[in-house]
Amino acid sequence: MKSGQWLRHSMCAGLLLAAGFMGNLAWADEFSYSGDHGPGFWSETPGWEACGRTTERGARQTPIDIRDTVVDPRLRRLDLHILETEISLLNNGHTIEQEYENGSELSLNGAVYELQQFHFHTLSEHAVHGHRGVMEQHAVFKNLSDNTMVVIGVIYELGRSSRFLDRLIDAGLPRKSGEETHSTHAIDLSDGLTDTGAYYTYAGSLTTPPCSETVTWFVLKHPATLSKSQFKAFNRILGNNFRPLQERNGRVVRSTAHREQDD
Amino acid sequence: MKSGQWLRHSMCAGLLLAAGFMGNLAWADEFSYSGDHGPGFWSETPGWEACGRTTERGARQTPIDIRDTVVDPRLRRLDLHILETEISLLNNGHTIEQEYENGSELSLNGAVYELQQFHFHTLSEHAVHGHRGVMEQHAVFKNLSDNTMVVIGVIYELGRSSRFLDRLIDAGLPRKSGEETHSTHAIDLSDGLTDTGAYYTYAGSLTTPPCSETVTWFVLKHPATLSKSQFKAFNRILGNNFRPLQERNGRVVRSTAHREQDD
Repeated sequence: MKSGQWLRHSMCAGLLLAAGFMGNLAWADEFSYSGDHGPGFWSETPGWEACGRTTERGARQTPIDIRDTVVDPRLRRLDLHILETEISLLNNGHTIEQEYENGSELSLNGAVYELQQFHFHTLSEHAVHGHRGVMEQHAVFKNLSDNTMVVIGVIYELGRSSRFLDRLIDAGLPRKSGEETHSTHAIDLSDGLTDTGAYYTYAGSLTTPPCSETVTWFVLKHPATLSKSQFKAFNRILGNNFRPLQERNGRVVRSTAHREQDD
Repeated sequence: MKSGQWLRHSMCAGLLLAAGFMGNLAWADEFSYSGDHGPGFWSETPGWEACGRTTERGARQTPIDIRDTVVDPRLRRLDLHILETEISLLNNGHTIEQEYENGSELSLNGAVYELQQFHFHTLSEHAVHGHRGVMEQHAVFKNLSDNTMVVIGVIYELGRSSRFLDRLIDAGLPRKSGEETHSTHAIDLSDGLTDTGAYYTYAGSLTTPPCSETVTWFVLKHPATLSKSQFKAFNRILGNNFRPLQERNGRVVRSTAHREQDD
């Protein structure tokens, strides 16, 4: 074979190899909520083994059905310091995520957790006494010194329209994977939280691969509401992007005390 | 360019085109339950426009939230003639489907509908008074003269183990898209139905693309039960393969009368 010929063949094969390789890369990085890459298969991808943990000693996967909680009168209102941020929404193929600029944080037991982003799931991931809401919002805070996380979950029920969600919808929710929406309008996570003095808390994980068991969860007791058309605006894009309920596996879920007047 | 060179380039381009073409075919045929190909996007594929119908005159999409039903004392027990069939399960990438051999049928208003297959969704697709079950089984019957369909839906709740489902699980549920399970053991749909004299019925559609509005639905009133481990066996493979609730759009949902003793 002449070298020119070899080169041409080699380029051809190279192109085909490249096409195949990109396909494989995409596959390895892929997860979904049904079918071959659904939650039951997440743990088969190297690095995502934690997603398959259920009742092994110390397994602490999220979400769970919240029930049989223990009231802990020492639990205080969440110590939040939240600034507003410019609307910057990303459809990452699994959820719609609002990126948060530096400077907003949660203080907990002497450690500081930086607000990174918040995002949405339809239906809700957590259930309370077996009942799922139609949507759940997760605000993700990270301790930059040890990479542990805090996530504040808000469950949405159908009801009155949410002005907070309207700001995101008005900016234009990014429809397709990889799409972004930028706006000069601002959004403040505080407006998207219900009473931060009333919550359930437990030790859990990320609800998406790699399902790292490094998350302290705070699920607010009071659901937020959104209108049917707001729900549809999110659900049309998100579909069913919630993980099935995981084993509680002996974990204690603590609950703030009921108070007429919060401190 | 020499003809030999052209041939080599052409073959190379042809291979790449073929790879791209197969990719496009796969894409066109694809739907999922979240993300870019989720239910909100089904109607964008040519031929699947019905999936986007909501409140247009005559739109009759499925599933719906079953409530405000009208009792119709003329509704009789379903006229079924079901034989057993060899277990033959297909994972088609969207659900697990038991193919049914010819000879089982439902008679309705003088027409005969042949049982084609039954399959599963987790969570349930229909809701009753806003409540979803954890799984729903759809038995699909087709009138071979006009291609209209009848589907009998059974909603599953967590509870006692189902011997019917155990037969399928014991045969080995096909895990990956395209996988099949064959067994010499038989299964009888009748064992997987609750009281066929107690149901809701309404005019609806397929719950997957192309969402054809040619289905008379019968959703049995009495839920079946399955154990937690049985649910997991299905949910691990199916993930969240249920379509969101659709607009009722003025349709009447009729209900059989409550009877102590069925005719």
